[in-house]
Amino acid sequence: MAVFEFSFFSMTLHRHTEVTAIIPAEGPIFPGQPPLSDAPFRMLILLHGYSGSHSDWLRGSSIEQLAQAHRMAVFCPSGENSFYIDDVKRDALYEQYICKELPEFARRVFHISDKREDCVIGGLSMGGYGAIRSGFKHPDTFGAILAFSSALITDGISHMPDEPQPAPAGQGGAMGMAPSYFVHTFGKPSGIIGSDVDPKALATQLMESGAERPRLYMACGSEDFLIEPNRDLHRHLESIGYEHSYTEGHGIHSWEYWNEHIARSLNWLDGKE
Amino acid sequence: MAVFEFSFFSMTLHRHTEVTAIIPAEGPIFPGQPPLSDAPFRMLILLHGYSGSHSDWLRGSSIEQLAQAHRMAVFCPSGENSFYIDDVKRDALYEQYICKELPEFARRVFHISDKREDCVIGGLSMGGYGAIRSGFKHPDTFGAILAFSSALITDGISHMPDEPQPAPAGQGGAMGMAPSYFVHTFGKPSGIIGSDVDPKALATQLMESGAERPRLYMACGSEDFLIEPNRDLHRHLESIGYEHSYTEGHGIHSWEYWNEHIARSLNWLDGKE
Amino acid sequence: MAVFEFSFFSMTLHRHTEVTAIIPAEGPIFPGQPPLSDAPFRMLILLHGYSGSHSDWLRGSSIEQLAQAHRMAVFCPSGENSFYIDDVKRDALYEQYICKELPEFARRVFHISDKREDCVIGGLSMGGYGAIRSGFKHPDTFGAILAFSSALITDGISHMPDEPQPAPAGQGGAMGMAPSYFVHTFGKPSGIIGSDVDPKALATQLMESGAERPRLYMACGSEDFLIEPNRDLHRHLESIGYEHSYTEGHGIHSWEYWNEHIARSLNWLDGKE
Amino acid sequence: MAVFEFSFFSMTLHRHTEVTAIIPAEGPIFPGQPPLSDAPFRMLILLHGYSGSHSDWLRGSSIEQLAQAHRMAVFCPSGENSFYIDDVKRDALYEQYICKELPEFARRVFHISDKREDCVIGGLSMGGYGAIRSGFKHPDTFGAILAFSSALITDGISHMPDEPQPAPAGQGGAMGMAPSYFVHTFGKPSGIIGSDVDPKALATQLMESGAERPRLYMACGSEDFLIEPNRDLHRHLESIGYEHSYTEGHGIHSWEYWNEHIARSLNWLDGKE
Repeated sequence: MAVFEFSFFSMTLHRHTEVTAIIPAEGPIFPGQPPLSDAPFRMLILLHGYSGSHSDWLRGSSIEQLAQAHRMAVFCPSGENSFYIDDVKRDALYEQYICKELPEFARRVFHISDKREDCVIGGLSMGGYGAIRSGFKHPDTFGAILAFSSALITDGISHMPDEPQPAPAGQGGAMGMAPSYFVHTFGKPSGIIGSDVDPKALATQLMESGAERPRLYMACGSEDFLIEPNRDLHRHLESIGYEHSYTEGHGIHSWEYWNEHIARSLNWLDGKE
Repeated sequence: MAVFEFSFFSMTLHRHTEVTAIIPAEGPIFPGQPPLSDAPFRMLILLHGYSGSHSDWLRGSSIEQLAQAHRMAVFCPSGENSFYIDDVKRDALYEQYICKELPEFARRVFHISDKREDCVIGGLSMGGYGAIRSGFKHPDTFGAILAFSSALITDGISHMPDEPQPAPAGQGGAMGMAPSYFVHTFGKPSGIIGSDVDPKALATQLMESGAERPRLYMACGSEDFLIEPNRDLHRHLESIGYEHSYTEGHGIHSWEYWNEHIARSLNWLDGKE
Repeated sequence: MAVFEFSFFSMTLHRHTEVTAIIPAEGPIFPGQPPLSDAPFRMLILLHGYSGSHSDWLRGSSIEQLAQAHRMAVFCPSGENSFYIDDVKRDALYEQYICKELPEFARRVFHISDKREDCVIGGLSMGGYGAIRSGFKHPDTFGAILAFSSALITDGISHMPDEPQPAPAGQGGAMGMAPSYFVHTFGKPSGIIGSDVDPKALATQLMESGAERPRLYMACGSEDFLIEPNRDLHRHLESIGYEHSYTEGHGIHSWEYWNEHIARSLNWLDGKE
Repeated sequence: MAVFEFSFFSMTLHRHTEVTAIIPAEGPIFPGQPPLSDAPFRMLILLHGYSGSHSDWLRGSSIEQLAQAHRMAVFCPSGENSFYIDDVKRDALYEQYICKELPEFARRVFHISDKREDCVIGGLSMGGYGAIRSGFKHPDTFGAILAFSSALITDGISHMPDEPQPAPAGQGGAMGMAPSYFVHTFGKPSGIIGSDVDPKALATQLMESGAERPRLYMACGSEDFLIEPNRDLHRHLESIGYEHSYTEGHGIHSWEYWNEHIARSLNWLDGKE
């Protein structure tokens, strides 16, 4: 499989950034395999979770094999811990990066379809949030959304104080997130509900706009600590009439679950499930 | 030359981060070359500039050859556009990363000297600022500082308003930095002078503390747009009695200048210039 | 997990070569995890199969998680299609590379134990052959061998003609190996049996030498096309009294099988299975 | 600049192989820069020398800046120590790889022109030989050849015995090439002259064929140990009427020389010198 690590100067992040990509461009390896098509590739932008990096999906899942089987060019950007939201204060515009600059760059460099229905966004945990938010906000760009164990945490954060107390020294640990981190990332908690970081509000606006909706595959394990907000978004989408696929099944917040569902979601995308 | 790209989970950045490293560990290639020493390597942490990344020094300079010639293990981290200052609001502690976690990681993984005099920090532009500030704040960690075309911009920023106006839409361009970026990075402008982001204040405190001072090599081209603040720090260091090497010479803000001075500074470090 | 891609000039291959490595050097991520040990790491040299490359194990298996769990530094070299045998005609000495230069390089650069019992060699398919042959030939270097679906094909090749006919044009396909390839790799077929490319002969010599034998874990799926020569070596080892672990179980020549057995073999190595 | 490291399964090498590439696809960084063109990129396949690897040109030269300035997509493959000649005995067909599979792969994956005049091959030392031989043998594929310090050593090797004596033990050193290496690489010395590894013979045949000839830029420093065979090919090309650019100038076998001439040759290619 053709695996790429590349870096380039991002005009929206204002610095060099790195991407892991997989392009299903290899010739037939065994006798009898069909010759390669010259058609442009479909594109899947696949987002990592909090604390992760662009190489996570390649190292953690079978995306390499799946990309070949589904003839899908996969691009995994680095979102640092941004939740894929524009950080205007720091000139680090992650939403613009993954929803506009990266797709354009991919099409300028690689042999990629420019059709909306051939452009998919997916992700896990923080990246599941990013995929859902990006798809709902940019329905003209993305034809489908694949969201696993999505960190749909905005409702919870909306109850935090707008001026958080600093965390006591020595607490937290490497994975503990300070309250200020959430405020910096999502904006003042009191302003979250109904804003453009609120997936339910975005879904409602998308329904009302009459724009073509991205197809949506959502999955979250029933033992995942994020199951409740996933159920909540699922119910909301049902209530407003946004058709989508929703799956739970036994599972925690782990690569085992994500690996199963990236495979199932690509079959679903191709109408095979 | 042995070139390494590696990534690991940083406890101070709260996510995976990437490093380019060069280790002068190859055996004798031509007959007659001396055998390799088993002594631990010296360490140079080498910082990139604004908009850059961990691979800049490898791609832009002759650091690979210099590392071999000076038997120096070189580690180039990614500082994003942080100026290597802790971003407490975002749980992204760049100062702790380059001054504590990275040296410790390097010593745990590689065969690196644990002596202060064998630990050097250097950088260009934003990375020159980072090298100077880090060396002045952590004199027990770093035995020497190599600073090229340093972005000693804190005096200038101290005159900005504490509550910056948003930049007018459409202005700026990819390299234009919004006022809010500076405030987020360095803190309220009115509080900068005398704080721990002010290199002159740090130098004064270091002199007064009686701690052993890092050796310091500063260079900035006379045509560089950053020449005045470099001259200013140079004069300040002279006025307080901080011995250091200071060079200008013809030059702009370019790899040609940095490549010349990384070479000269390593000779200086080894007492050859 | 700390993942490394590095390249260096190999004196035995006479050119730059690349290695993927995993070093279990990260600090405690969650509160309550024990602090890191300063003890040197054990080393596992892990070999890819025919047609593969140094990054195969990282991309195809869970070796990253296993390296952390077992505190084992893993080095995956590139063996091209050499079967890890010295190609003297081309100055490309793969056996010397993996059995001598790479372990020495790893110890010179990284913080690695220099004890024989802390140095393990493993591999799959062509790499399983390489692990077995290397371990049997260099029992002073390797304390253990982990061999999966090993391409123990020398008995079969010994029946080929010494002067192979060229393959008919258009046959073969990308994975078809020409007879000349085997002759180039293993030497004249009539000379294979009893030579140092014959694992059974090497095992017998090792038993007779009285040298300390590497511990050996062998596994091959009962549906693998290589099962018969694996059974044959297993019987030979039993007949000469070389204690070892041998497992079959349901399985074909696939990452699913290798992933299961790299995990089981590391437990076996640590006395947990 | 957009820099790519990628690997894929090569059907002609029968294994995964790695490529370093540079694509001039970044947007305008400073205000006032022209917008990007959507035209396909020209392609330069750029070959490393003996003992090198795919990353040499990126690390050793300014090719990154030059690729942007000339809007040229650059692909640097790994030729190991093959001289870019098919090694039929080992199923490792380097000529087919760089002259057919790699250009096709690049066009299938990236947005690359399919015109002959937009496809250039270049290289240094062993890679200069490879560029010249490939260009002369495949004039329908390559519109131009850039050859620096070319290792035009076939005349010298043609005087070696067909059955070389093994090198005495302990001689040679890492860079010493055994006689058997040359015989394996180029075939029996007595058969070299006039064969398809003989650049002068290929040039003569190309002239006689009437096919369109690749434009040719040759450079070799007057202090280079390879200067004589470069002068010899230059005279031969003059004698048969193959127009070309030939330059010597002060210089040895070094990156300083190659860096100067890759820059000059790209200007020459664009009619600027």
